Amino acid sequence: MKLARFDNDRLGVVIGTNVHDITDIQTEIRKAHPYATYADAVISALPTWRGRMEDAAKKAPGKPISSVKLLSPIARPPKNIAAPTNYAAHIAEMAKRREDGMNIGNHSPKIKEAGIFLKSNTSIVGVSEGIPIRFPERRNEHEAELVVIIGKQGTDIPIGKAMDYIAGYCLGLDMTTRGPEDRSFRKSIDGYSVLGPWFVTADEIKDPGHMPLKLDVNGEVRQDTNTSQLIYDIPKLIEFASSFYTLYPGDVYYTGTPEGVAPVKPGDTIRVVADPALGELVIKCRAHEIGKT
Amino acid sequence: MKLARFDNDRLGVVIGTNVHDITDIQTEIRKAHPYATYADAVISALPTWRGRMEDAAKKAPGKPISSVKLLSPIARPPKNIAAPTNYAAHIAEMAKRREDGMNIGNHSPKIKEAGIFLKSNTSIVGVSEGIPIRFPERRNEHEAELVVIIGKQGTDIPIGKAMDYIAGYCLGLDMTTRGPEDRSFRKSIDGYSVLGPWFVTADEIKDPGHMPLKLDVNGEVRQDTNTSQLIYDIPKLIEFASSFYTLYPGDVYYTGTPEGVAPVKPGDTIRVVADPALGELVIKCRAHEIGKT
Repeated sequence: MKLARFDNDRLGVVIGTNVHDITDIQTEIRKAHPYATYADAVISALPTWRGRMEDAAKKAPGKPISSVKLLSPIARPPKNIAAPTNYAAHIAEMAKRREDGMNIGNHSPKIKEAGIFLKSNTSIVGVSEGIPIRFPERRNEHEAELVVIIGKQGTDIPIGKAMDYIAGYCLGLDMTTRGPEDRSFRKSIDGYSVLGPWFVTADEIKDPGHMPLKLDVNGEVRQDTNTSQLIYDIPKLIEFASSFYTLYPGDVYYTGTPEGVAPVKPGDTIRVVADPALGELVIKCRAHEIGKT
Repeated sequence: MKLARFDNDRLGVVIGTNVHDITDIQTEIRKAHPYATYADAVISALPTWRGRMEDAAKKAPGKPISSVKLLSPIARPPKNIAAPTNYAAHIAEMAKRREDGMNIGNHSPKIKEAGIFLKSNTSIVGVSEGIPIRFPERRNEHEAELVVIIGKQGTDIPIGKAMDYIAGYCLGLDMTTRGPEDRSFRKSIDGYSVLGPWFVTADEIKDPGHMPLKLDVNGEVRQDTNTSQLIYDIPKLIEFASSFYTLYPGDVYYTGTPEGVAPVKPGDTIRVVADPALGELVIKCRAHEIGKT
Protein backbone atom coordinates (compact mmCIF):
# COMPACT_ATOMS: atom_id res chain seq x y z
CA MET A 1 0.00 0.00 0.00
CA LYS A 2 1.14 3.53 -0.82
CA LEU A 3 0.01 6.32 1.50
CA ALA A 4 0.13 9.99 0.58
CA ARG A 5 -0.59 13.02 2.75
CA PHE A 6 -1.88 15.86 0.65
CA ASP A 7 -3.61 19.23 0.40
CA ASN A 8 -4.80 20.39 3.82
CA ASP A 9 -3.57 17.36 5.84
CA ARG A 10 -5.65 14.76 3.97
CA LEU A 11 -4.69 11.07 3.77
CA GLY A 12 -4.97 9.00 0.62
CA VAL A 13 -4.03 5.65 -0.86
CA VAL A 14 -2.10 5.90 -4.13
CA ILE A 15 -3.36 3.50 -6.84
CA GLY A 16 -1.77 3.95 -10.24
CA THR A 17 -1.70 7.68 -10.94
CA ASN A 18 -4.61 8.49 -8.64
CA VAL A 19 -4.93 9.18 -4.92
CA HIS A 20 -8.02 7.85 -3.11
CA ASP A 21 -9.08 9.93 -0.13
CA ILE A 22 -9.36 8.07 3.21
CA THR A 23 -9.15 11.10 5.48
CA ASP A 24 -12.10 9.83 7.56
CA ILE A 25 -9.98 6.87 8.65
CA GLN A 26 -7.07 9.15 9.51
CA THR A 27 -9.42 11.22 11.67
CA GLU A 28 -10.66 8.10 13.47
CA ILE A 29 -7.11 6.79 14.03
CA ARG A 30 -5.89 10.10 15.43
CA LYS A 31 -8.88 10.39 17.73
CA ALA A 32 -8.00 7.07 19.35
CA HIS A 33 -4.27 7.88 19.52
CA PRO A 34 -2.99 9.13 22.90
CA TYR A 35 -1.57 12.67 22.70
CA ALA A 36 1.42 12.15 24.97
CA THR A 37 3.06 9.41 22.98
CA TYR A 38 6.04 9.63 20.69
CA ALA A 39 4.69 7.43 17.91
CA ASP A 40 2.99 8.78 14.79
CA ALA A 41 -0.70 7.85 14.81
CA VAL A 42 -1.19 6.48 11.28
CA ILE A 43 2.07 4.51 11.20
CA SER A 44 1.28 3.00 14.63
CA ALA A 45 -2.17 2.00 13.41
CA LEU A 46 -1.03 0.24 10.22
CA PRO A 47 -0.93 -3.32 11.60
CA THR A 48 -4.56 -3.16 12.71
CA TRP A 49 -6.05 -0.70 10.21
CA ARG A 50 -4.42 -1.63 6.93
CA GLY A 51 -7.23 -3.86 5.64
CA ARG A 52 -9.86 -1.23 6.33
CA MET A 53 -7.69 1.44 4.68
CA GLU A 54 -7.39 -0.61 1.50
CA ASP A 55 -11.11 -1.38 1.44
CA ALA A 56 -12.01 2.28 1.94
CA ALA A 57 -9.60 3.32 -0.81
CA LYS A 58 -11.29 0.99 -3.30
CA LYS A 59 -14.63 2.66 -2.60
CA ALA A 60 -13.30 6.22 -2.53
CA PRO A 61 -13.21 8.21 -5.77
CA GLY A 62 -9.67 8.81 -7.04
CA LYS A 63 -8.18 12.00 -8.31
CA PRO A 64 -4.90 12.53 -10.18
CA ILE A 65 -1.88 12.78 -7.90
CA SER A 66 -0.67 15.54 -10.18
CA SER A 67 -3.63 17.67 -9.02
CA VAL A 68 -2.86 17.56 -5.28
CA LYS A 69 -0.29 19.23 -3.04
CA LEU A 70 1.92 16.48 -1.58
CA LEU A 71 2.99 16.92 2.06
CA SER A 72 5.40 14.83 4.14
CA PRO A 73 3.88 11.33 4.26
CA ILE A 74 4.64 11.16 8.01
CA ALA A 75 2.66 13.75 9.96
CA ARG A 76 4.41 13.65 13.36
CA PRO A 77 7.69 11.74 13.32
CA PRO A 78 9.13 11.14 16.80
CA LYS A 79 12.68 11.49 15.45
CA ASN A 80 14.36 12.38 12.19
CA ILE A 81 17.68 10.53 12.07
CA ALA A 82 20.33 10.07 9.43
CA ALA A 83 23.41 7.98 8.74
CA PRO A 84 26.56 9.84 7.73
CA THR A 85 29.44 8.38 5.72
CA ASN A 86 27.60 5.25 4.64
CA TYR A 87 28.80 4.88 1.02
CA ALA A 88 32.53 4.41 0.38
CA ALA A 89 32.55 6.58 -2.76
CA HIS A 90 30.93 9.48 -0.85
CA ILE A 91 33.54 9.18 1.91
CA ALA A 92 36.22 9.34 -0.79
CA GLU A 93 34.78 12.49 -2.39
CA MET A 94 34.55 14.21 1.01
CA ALA A 95 38.15 13.21 1.84
CA LYS A 96 39.19 14.77 -1.47
CA ARG A 97 37.46 18.02 -0.46
CA ARG A 98 39.28 18.00 2.84
CA GLU A 99 42.58 17.58 0.99
CA ASP A 100 41.60 20.49 -1.23
CA GLY A 101 41.28 22.63 1.89
CA MET A 102 37.50 22.86 2.06
CA ASN A 103 36.16 23.25 5.61
CA ILE A 104 33.94 20.21 6.04
CA GLY A 105 34.47 19.41 9.71
CA ASN A 106 36.54 16.74 11.36
CA HIS A 107 34.12 13.87 11.78
CA SER A 108 35.34 10.31 11.58
CA PRO A 109 34.70 8.73 8.19
CA LYS A 110 33.87 5.45 9.95
CA ILE A 111 30.17 5.24 10.72
CA LYS A 112 30.75 3.27 13.93
CA GLU A 113 32.71 6.24 15.28
CA ALA A 114 30.69 8.95 13.56
CA GLY A 115 27.39 7.69 14.97
CA ILE A 116 23.93 8.50 13.64
CA PHE A 117 23.00 12.18 13.64
CA LEU A 118 19.71 13.98 14.13
CA LYS A 119 17.90 16.34 11.80
CA SER A 120 15.05 18.44 13.18
CA ASN A 121 11.50 17.22 12.77
CA THR A 122 10.59 20.76 11.81
CA SER A 123 12.82 20.56 8.72
CA ILE A 124 10.67 17.87 7.05
CA VAL A 125 8.66 18.83 3.96
CA GLY A 126 6.71 17.06 1.25
CA VAL A 127 7.63 17.40 -2.41
CA SER A 128 5.05 20.10 -3.19
CA GLU A 129 6.39 22.39 -0.48
CA GLY A 130 9.72 23.16 -2.10
CA ILE A 131 13.09 23.84 -0.47
CA PRO A 132 13.77 27.41 0.67
CA ILE A 133 17.55 27.91 0.31
CA ARG A 134 18.39 29.78 3.50
CA PHE A 135 21.99 30.80 2.93
CA PRO A 136 22.39 31.14 -0.85
CA GLU A 137 25.91 32.53 -0.38
CA ARG A 138 27.00 29.20 1.16
CA ARG A 139 27.27 25.77 -0.46
CA ASN A 140 23.86 24.00 -0.30
CA GLU A 141 23.94 20.41 -1.47
CA HIS A 142 21.57 17.61 -2.33
CA GLU A 143 22.01 14.20 -0.73
CA ALA A 144 19.69 11.56 -2.24
CA GLU A 145 18.82 8.76 0.19
CA LEU A 146 16.61 5.76 0.71
CA VAL A 147 14.57 6.41 3.86
CA VAL A 148 13.34 3.75 6.27
CA ILE A 149 10.17 4.43 8.31
CA ILE A 150 10.14 2.57 11.61
CA GLY A 151 6.91 0.69 12.34
CA LYS A 152 7.34 -0.81 15.79
CA GLN A 153 8.76 0.40 19.10
CA GLY A 154 12.03 -1.22 20.08
CA THR A 155 15.40 -0.73 21.69
CA ASP A 156 18.58 -2.87 21.56
CA ILE A 157 17.08 -4.52 18.46
CA PRO A 158 19.11 -7.56 17.35
CA ILE A 159 20.23 -7.45 13.73
CA GLY A 160 18.33 -10.63 12.90
CA LYS A 161 15.02 -9.06 13.92
CA ALA A 162 15.66 -5.57 12.55
CA MET A 163 13.54 -5.94 9.40
CA ASP A 164 10.46 -6.65 11.55
CA TYR A 165 10.70 -3.09 12.86
CA ILE A 166 10.23 -1.47 9.44
CA ALA A 167 6.84 -0.08 8.41
CA GLY A 168 7.99 0.95 4.96
CA TYR A 169 10.09 3.27 2.84
CA CYS A 170 10.23 6.69 1.22
CA LEU A 171 12.62 8.55 -1.00
CA GLY A 172 14.45 11.36 0.75
CA LEU A 173 16.76 14.32 0.38
CA ASP A 174 19.08 15.15 3.25
CA MET A 175 19.74 18.75 2.23
CA THR A 176 22.91 20.21 3.66
CA THR A 177 24.47 23.63 4.06
CA ARG A 178 28.24 23.19 4.30
CA GLY A 179 30.14 25.00 7.02
CA PRO A 180 31.71 24.59 10.44
CA GLU A 181 28.51 24.23 12.48
CA ASP A 182 27.23 20.99 14.00
CA ARG A 183 25.63 18.74 11.38
CA SER A 184 22.40 18.69 13.37
CA PHE A 185 22.20 22.51 12.90
CA ARG A 186 23.25 22.90 9.24
CA LYS A 187 21.00 20.02 8.16
CA SER A 188 17.95 21.12 10.17
CA ILE A 189 17.11 24.27 8.24
CA ASP A 190 13.40 24.56 7.34
CA GLY A 191 12.73 22.38 4.29
CA TYR A 192 16.11 20.59 4.44
CA SER A 193 14.59 17.12 5.00
CA VAL A 194 12.53 16.17 1.97
CA LEU A 195 10.35 13.06 2.25
CA GLY A 196 8.11 11.57 -0.38
CA PRO A 197 6.38 11.64 -2.71
CA TRP A 198 4.53 9.04 -0.64
CA PHE A 199 5.10 6.22 1.87
CA VAL A 200 5.26 2.59 0.66
CA THR A 201 4.68 -0.34 3.01
CA ALA A 202 7.61 -2.76 3.36
CA ASP A 203 5.85 -5.64 1.56
CA GLU A 204 5.89 -3.70 -1.72
CA ILE A 205 9.68 -3.41 -1.77
CA LYS A 206 11.26 -6.71 -2.69
CA ASP A 207 14.85 -5.98 -1.74
CA PRO A 208 15.63 -2.58 -0.19
CA GLY A 209 19.25 -3.72 0.01
CA HIS A 210 19.57 -3.94 -3.78
CA MET A 211 17.85 -0.93 -5.24
CA PRO A 212 19.09 1.62 -7.78
CA LEU A 213 19.15 5.18 -6.39
CA LYS A 214 19.58 8.08 -8.76
CA LEU A 215 19.39 11.87 -8.55
CA ASP A 216 19.39 14.54 -11.22
CA VAL A 217 19.31 18.33 -11.06
CA ASN A 218 17.50 20.02 -13.96
CA GLY A 219 17.84 16.75 -15.85
CA GLU A 220 21.60 16.34 -15.31
CA VAL A 221 22.48 13.12 -13.44
CA ARG A 222 24.51 13.82 -10.31
CA GLN A 223 24.12 10.76 -8.07
CA ASP A 224 23.73 7.20 -9.32
CA THR A 225 24.26 4.19 -7.09
CA ASN A 226 22.66 1.07 -5.69
CA THR A 227 21.74 0.53 -2.02
CA SER A 228 23.88 -2.63 -2.17
CA GLN A 229 26.78 -0.17 -1.77
CA LEU A 230 25.66 0.82 1.77
CA ILE A 231 28.46 0.23 4.30
CA TYR A 232 25.98 -0.37 7.16
CA ASP A 233 23.03 -2.09 5.51
CA ILE A 234 19.50 -1.49 6.74
CA PRO A 235 19.42 -4.16 9.50
CA LYS A 236 22.80 -2.96 10.80
CA LEU A 237 21.62 0.66 10.79
CA ILE A 238 18.60 -0.30 12.91
CA GLU A 239 20.70 -2.33 15.33
CA PHE A 240 23.17 0.55 15.67
CA ALA A 241 20.65 3.35 16.29
CA SER A 242 18.60 1.23 18.69
CA SER A 243 21.70 0.46 20.74
CA PHE A 244 21.67 4.15 21.75
CA TYR A 245 17.96 4.95 21.90
CA THR A 246 14.48 3.56 21.47
CA LEU A 247 12.98 3.64 17.98
CA TYR A 248 9.28 4.45 17.65
CA PRO A 249 6.64 4.05 14.93
CA GLY A 250 7.04 6.96 12.56
CA ASP A 251 10.75 7.51 13.17
CA VAL A 252 12.32 8.67 9.91
CA TYR A 253 15.72 7.11 9.16
CA TYR A 254 17.82 8.45 6.26
CA THR A 255 20.24 5.67 5.30
CA GLY A 256 23.08 7.76 3.87
CA THR A 257 24.00 9.34 0.54
CA PRO A 258 26.26 8.10 -2.26
CA GLU A 259 28.89 10.09 -4.14
CA GLY A 260 27.97 12.97 -6.40
CA VAL A 261 26.67 15.48 -3.84
CA ALA A 262 26.79 18.92 -5.43
CA PRO A 263 25.40 22.41 -4.95
CA VAL A 264 21.92 23.60 -5.86
CA LYS A 265 20.50 27.12 -6.06
CA PRO A 266 17.05 28.71 -6.08
CA GLY A 267 15.24 27.76 -9.29
CA ASP A 268 16.81 24.28 -9.53
CA THR A 269 14.62 21.18 -9.71
CA ILE A 270 15.89 18.03 -7.97
CA ARG A 271 14.60 14.58 -8.94
CA VAL A 272 15.27 11.33 -7.06
CA VAL A 273 14.24 7.89 -8.32
CA ALA A 274 14.79 4.35 -7.04
CA ASP A 275 12.41 1.38 -6.99
CA PRO A 276 9.43 2.49 -9.17
CA ALA A 277 6.99 1.69 -6.31
CA LEU A 278 8.52 4.58 -4.37
CA GLY A 279 7.49 7.03 -7.09
CA GLU A 280 9.54 10.03 -8.16
CA LEU A 281 10.64 12.67 -5.71
CA VAL A 282 10.61 15.94 -7.64
CA ILE A 283 11.11 19.20 -5.75
CA LYS A 284 12.03 22.75 -6.55
CA CYS A 285 14.48 25.02 -4.73
CA ARG A 286 13.57 28.63 -4.08
CA ALA A 287 15.00 31.55 -2.11
CA HIS A 288 14.19 31.78 1.61
CA GLU A 289 12.21 34.89 2.50
CA ILE A 290 13.36 36.52 5.76
CA GLY A 291 10.93 35.82 8.59
CA LYS A 292 8.87 33.35 6.58
CA THR A 293 8.40 29.78 7.76
CA MET B 1 2.14 30.02 36.97
CA LYS B 2 3.91 26.69 37.45
CA LEU B 3 2.69 23.73 35.39
CA ALA B 4 3.53 20.13 36.21
CA ARG B 5 2.77 16.99 34.21
CA PHE B 6 2.39 14.03 36.50
CA ASP B 7 1.26 10.46 37.07
CA ASN B 8 -0.51 9.09 34.01
CA ASP B 9 -0.20 12.22 31.80
CA ARG B 10 -2.16 14.54 34.14
CA LEU B 11 -1.70 18.34 34.17
CA GLY B 12 -1.54 20.39 37.35
CA VAL B 13 -0.76 23.86 38.63
CA VAL B 14 1.88 23.94 41.37
CA ILE B 15 0.93 26.17 44.33
CA GLY B 16 3.30 26.01 47.28
CA THR B 17 4.06 22.35 47.88
CA ASN B 18 0.84 21.10 46.28
CA VAL B 19 -0.21 20.31 42.72
CA HIS B 20 -3.79 21.17 41.69
CA ASP B 21 -5.19 18.92 38.99
CA ILE B 22 -6.49 20.65 35.85
CA THR B 23 -6.37 17.64 33.52
CA ASP B 24 -9.86 18.45 32.19
CA ILE B 25 -8.48 21.66 30.70
CA GLN B 26 -5.56 19.80 29.17
CA THR B 27 -8.04 17.39 27.55
CA GLU B 28 -10.06 20.28 26.13
CA ILE B 29 -6.96 22.07 24.82
CA ARG B 30 -5.63 18.95 23.12
CA LYS B 31 -9.00 18.20 21.54
CA ALA B 32 -8.98 21.58 19.83
CA HIS B 33 -5.31 21.30 18.80
CA PRO B 34 -4.66 20.19 15.21
CA TYR B 35 -2.76 16.89 15.00
CA ALA B 36 -0.47 17.78 12.13
CA THR B 37 1.18 20.76 13.73
CA TYR B 38 4.62 21.00 15.28
CA ALA B 39 3.63 23.03 18.33
CA ASP B 40 2.89 21.51 21.75
CA ALA B 41 -0.80 21.91 22.58
CA VAL B 42 -0.67 23.25 26.16
CA ILE B 43 2.22 25.66 25.53
CA SER B 44 0.46 26.99 22.38
CA ALA B 45 -2.73 27.50 24.37
CA LEU B 46 -1.15 29.46 27.25
CA PRO B 47 -1.87 32.99 25.94
CA THR B 48 -5.61 32.30 25.68
CA TRP B 49 -6.13 29.69 28.41
CA ARG B 50 -3.94 30.88 31.27
CA GLY B 51 -6.66 32.72 33.17
CA ARG B 52 -8.99 29.72 33.05
CA MET B 53 -6.15 27.43 34.13
CA GLU B 54 -5.42 29.53 37.19
CA ASP B 55 -9.11 29.79 38.10
CA ALA B 56 -9.57 26.02 37.76
CA ALA B 57 -6.48 25.38 39.88
CA LYS B 58 -7.89 27.49 42.72
CA LYS B 59 -11.03 25.35 42.77
CA ALA B 60 -9.25 22.00 42.34
CA PRO B 61 -8.14 20.10 45.45
CA GLY B 62 -4.37 20.05 45.89
CA LYS B 63 -2.17 17.12 46.73
CA PRO B 64 1.48 17.08 47.79
CA ILE B 65 3.90 17.23 44.88
CA SER B 66 5.97 14.70 46.78
CA SER B 67 3.17 12.15 46.29
CA VAL B 68 3.05 12.31 42.48
CA LYS B 69 5.24 10.99 39.67
CA LEU B 70 6.65 14.00 37.81
CA LEU B 71 6.93 13.67 34.01
CA SER B 72 8.48 16.02 31.48
CA PRO B 73 6.50 19.27 31.75
CA ILE B 74 6.34 19.50 27.94
CA ALA B 75 4.37 16.62 26.43
CA ARG B 76 5.26 16.91 22.72
CA PRO B 77 8.16 19.27 22.05
CA PRO B 78 8.67 19.99 18.34
CA LYS B 79 12.45 20.19 18.85
CA ASN B 80 14.95 19.60 21.63
CA ILE B 81 17.91 21.90 21.02
CA ALA B 82 21.00 22.77 23.01
CA ALA B 83 23.83 25.29 23.00
CA PRO B 84 27.36 23.89 23.25
CA THR B 85 30.39 25.79 24.57
CA ASN B 86 28.41 28.65 26.09
CA TYR B 87 30.34 29.22 29.34
CA ALA B 88 34.02 30.25 29.13
CA ALA B 89 35.06 28.15 32.15
CA HIS B 90 33.47 25.01 30.62
CA ILE B 91 35.31 25.64 27.34
CA ALA B 92 38.54 25.90 29.36
CA GLU B 93 37.94 22.62 31.18
CA MET B 94 37.20 20.83 27.91
CA ALA B 95 40.34 22.32 26.29
CA LYS B 96 42.31 20.96 29.25
CA ARG B 97 40.87 17.49 28.63
CA ARG B 98 41.88 17.70 24.98
CA GLU B 99 45.43 18.62 26.05
CA ASP B 100 45.37 15.64 28.40
CA GLY B 101 44.67 13.42 25.38
CA MET B 102 41.02 12.66 26.05
CA ASN B 103 38.96 12.04 22.89
CA ILE B 104 36.30 14.72 23.03
CA GLY B 105 35.87 15.53 19.35
CA ASN B 106 37.12 18.45 17.32
CA HIS B 107 34.28 20.94 17.50
CA SER B 108 35.03 24.63 17.50
CA PRO B 109 34.94 26.16 20.98
CA LYS B 110 33.27 29.25 19.50
CA ILE B 111 29.50 28.92 19.59
CA LYS B 112 29.04 30.92 16.36
CA GLU B 113 31.06 28.23 14.56
CA ALA B 114 29.88 25.28 16.64
CA GLY B 115 26.19 26.04 16.04
CA ILE B 116 23.28 24.77 18.12
CA PHE B 117 22.92 20.99 18.26
CA LEU B 118 19.88 18.73 18.51
CA LYS B 119 19.00 16.18 21.14
CA SER B 120 16.23 13.67 20.42
CA ASN B 121 12.72 14.40 21.64
CA THR B 122 12.56 10.78 22.73
CA SER B 123 15.39 11.33 25.23
CA ILE B 124 13.33 13.71 27.38
CA VAL B 125 12.23 12.54 30.83
CA GLY B 126 10.73 14.06 33.94
CA VAL B 127 12.48 13.90 37.30
CA SER B 128 10.56 10.88 38.60
CA GLU B 129 11.55 8.76 35.61
CA GLY B 130 15.24 8.49 36.42
CA ILE B 131 18.21 8.27 34.07
CA PRO B 132 19.12 4.81 32.73
CA ILE B 133 22.91 4.87 32.23
CA ARG B 134 23.26 3.08 28.90
CA PHE B 135 27.00 2.58 28.62
CA PRO B 136 28.30 2.37 32.19
CA GLU B 137 31.77 1.48 30.89
CA ARG B 138 32.00 4.90 29.23
CA ARG B 139 32.14 8.36 30.79
CA ASN B 140 28.58 9.63 31.44
CA GLU B 141 28.42 13.21 32.61
CA HIS B 142 25.92 15.66 34.05
CA GLU B 143 25.50 19.09 32.44
CA ALA B 144 23.25 21.39 34.48
CA GLU B 145 21.47 23.99 32.37
CA LEU B 146 18.80 26.64 32.41
CA VAL B 147 16.21 25.67 29.79
CA VAL B 148 14.08 28.09 27.78
CA ILE B 149 10.68 26.93 26.50
CA ILE B 150 9.63 28.71 23.31
CA GLY B 151 6.08 30.13 23.38
CA LYS B 152 5.50 31.61 19.93
CA GLN B 153 6.28 30.56 16.37
CA GLY B 154 8.99 32.61 14.70
CA THR B 155 11.94 32.56 12.36
CA ASP B 156 14.73 35.13 11.81
CA ILE B 157 13.75 36.59 15.20
CA PRO B 158 15.51 39.92 15.88
CA ILE B 159 17.45 40.02 19.14
CA GLY B 160 15.35 42.93 20.43
CA LYS B 161 12.16 40.89 20.16
CA ALA B 162 13.58 37.53 21.29
CA MET B 163 12.21 37.65 24.85
CA ASP B 164 8.64 37.90 23.46
CA TYR B 165 9.08 34.36 22.08
CA ILE B 166 9.64 32.76 25.48
CA ALA B 167 6.79 30.92 27.23
CA GLY B 168 8.84 30.13 30.32
CA TYR B 169 11.67 28.16 31.86
CA CYS B 170 12.66 24.80 33.36
CA LEU B 171 15.74 23.35 34.93
CA GLY B 172 17.49 20.79 32.77
CA LEU B 173 20.22 18.20 32.56
CA ASP B 174 21.92 17.67 29.22
CA MET B 175 23.29 14.21 30.01
CA THR B 176 26.24 13.18 27.87
CA THR B 177 28.10 10.02 27.07
CA ARG B 178 31.63 10.98 25.99
CA GLY B 179 33.10 9.44 22.88
CA PRO B 180 33.77 9.98 19.19
CA GLU B 181 30.17 9.87 17.94
CA ASP B 182 28.13 12.85 16.80
CA ARG B 183 26.89 14.90 19.75
CA SER B 184 23.31 14.46 18.55
CA PHE B 185 23.76 10.67 19.00
CA ARG B 186 25.66 10.48 22.31
CA LYS B 187 23.33 13.03 23.92
CA SER B 188 20.09 11.47 22.64
CA ILE B 189 20.16 8.28 24.66
CA ASP B 190 16.82 7.49 26.38
CA GLY B 191 16.58 9.60 29.53
CA TYR B 192 19.54 11.84 28.66
CA SER B 193 17.47 15.05 28.51
CA VAL B 194 16.03 15.75 31.95
CA LEU B 195 13.43 18.51 32.21
CA GLY B 196 11.66 19.71 35.32
CA PRO B 197 10.54 19.43 37.98
CA TRP B 198 7.90 21.71 36.40
CA PHE B 199 7.50 24.54 33.89
CA VAL B 200 7.41 28.17 35.10
CA THR B 201 5.90 30.97 33.00
CA ALA B 202 8.30 33.77 32.02
CA ASP B 203 6.60 36.41 34.22
CA GLU B 204 7.66 34.52 37.38
CA ILE B 205 11.38 34.78 36.56
CA LYS B 206 12.63 38.29 37.15
CA ASP B 207 15.98 38.05 35.39
CA PRO B 208 16.86 34.78 33.65
CA GLY B 209 20.15 36.41 32.65
CA HIS B 210 21.29 36.74 36.26
CA MET B 211 20.40 33.53 38.02
CA PRO B 212 22.52 31.23 40.18
CA LEU B 213 22.76 27.70 38.75
CA LYS B 214 24.12 24.91 40.92
CA LEU B 215 24.43 21.14 40.69
CA ASP B 216 25.41 18.54 43.25
CA VAL B 217 25.83 14.77 43.05
CA ASN B 218 25.00 12.89 46.25
CA GLY B 219 25.29 16.23 48.08
CA GLU B 220 28.73 17.16 46.69
CA VAL B 221 28.70 20.42 44.73
CA ARG B 222 30.04 19.95 41.19
CA GLN B 223 28.74 22.90 39.16
CA ASP B 224 28.14 26.39 40.54
CA THR B 225 27.71 29.40 38.30
CA ASN B 226 25.41 32.25 37.34
CA THR B 227 23.62 32.60 34.00
CA SER B 228 25.27 36.03 33.71
CA GLN B 229 28.31 34.00 32.61
CA LEU B 230 26.57 32.80 29.41
CA ILE B 231 28.60 33.74 26.31
CA TYR B 232 25.48 33.94 24.11
CA ASP B 233 22.78 35.27 26.41
CA ILE B 234 19.18 34.15 26.00
CA PRO B 235 18.10 36.73 23.38
CA LYS B 236 21.23 36.01 21.33
CA LEU B 237 20.60 32.24 21.54
CA ILE B 238 17.08 32.73 20.18
CA GLU B 239 18.27 35.01 17.39
CA PHE B 240 20.97 32.48 16.45
CA ALA B 241 18.79 29.36 16.37
CA SER B 242 15.98 31.11 14.53
CA SER B 243 18.40 32.30 11.84
CA PHE B 244 18.66 28.62 10.81
CA TYR B 245 15.16 27.31 11.49
CA THR B 246 11.70 28.19 12.71
CA LEU B 247 11.06 27.95 16.45
CA TYR B 248 7.68 26.63 17.60
CA PRO B 249 5.69 26.71 20.86
CA GLY B 250 7.03 23.92 23.04
CA ASP B 251 10.55 23.88 21.58
CA VAL B 252 12.97 23.01 24.38
CA TYR B 253 16.19 25.05 24.36
CA TYR B 254 19.07 24.07 26.68
CA THR B 255 21.23 27.19 27.12
CA GLY B 256 24.59 25.52 27.83
CA THR B 257 26.45 24.16 30.82
CA PRO B 258 29.09 25.74 33.06
CA GLU B 259 32.34 24.18 34.27
CA GLY B 260 32.36 21.22 36.64
CA VAL B 261 30.90 18.51 34.39
CA ALA B 262 31.85 15.16 35.86
CA PRO B 263 30.91 11.49 35.65
CA VAL B 264 27.91 9.83 37.30
CA LYS B 265 27.07 6.17 37.76
CA PRO B 266 23.99 4.09 38.56
CA GLY B 267 22.85 4.85 42.10
CA ASP B 268 23.92 8.51 42.03
CA THR B 269 21.42 11.28 42.75
CA ILE B 270 21.80 14.54 40.82
CA ARG B 271 20.29 17.78 42.11
CA VAL B 272 20.04 21.07 40.18
CA VAL B 273 18.86 24.35 41.71
CA ALA B 274 18.61 27.90 40.39
CA ASP B 275 15.87 30.50 40.94
CA PRO B 276 13.64 29.03 43.71
CA ALA B 277 10.55 29.43 41.48
CA LEU B 278 11.98 26.74 39.21
CA GLY B 279 11.95 24.22 42.05
CA GLU B 280 14.60 21.57 42.58
CA LEU B 281 15.46 19.07 39.89
CA VAL B 282 16.34 15.86 41.73
CA ILE B 283 16.85 12.68 39.72
CA LYS B 284 18.41 9.30 40.24
CA CYS B 285 20.70 7.37 37.88
CA ARG B 286 20.17 3.65 37.40
CA ALA B 287 21.52 0.93 35.11
CA HIS B 288 19.91 0.53 31.67
CA GLU B 289 18.24 -2.85 31.19
CA ILE B 290 18.83 -4.35 27.73
CA GLY B 291 15.73 -4.03 25.55
CA LYS B 292 13.86 -1.84 28.02
CA THR B 293 12.65 1.61 27.01
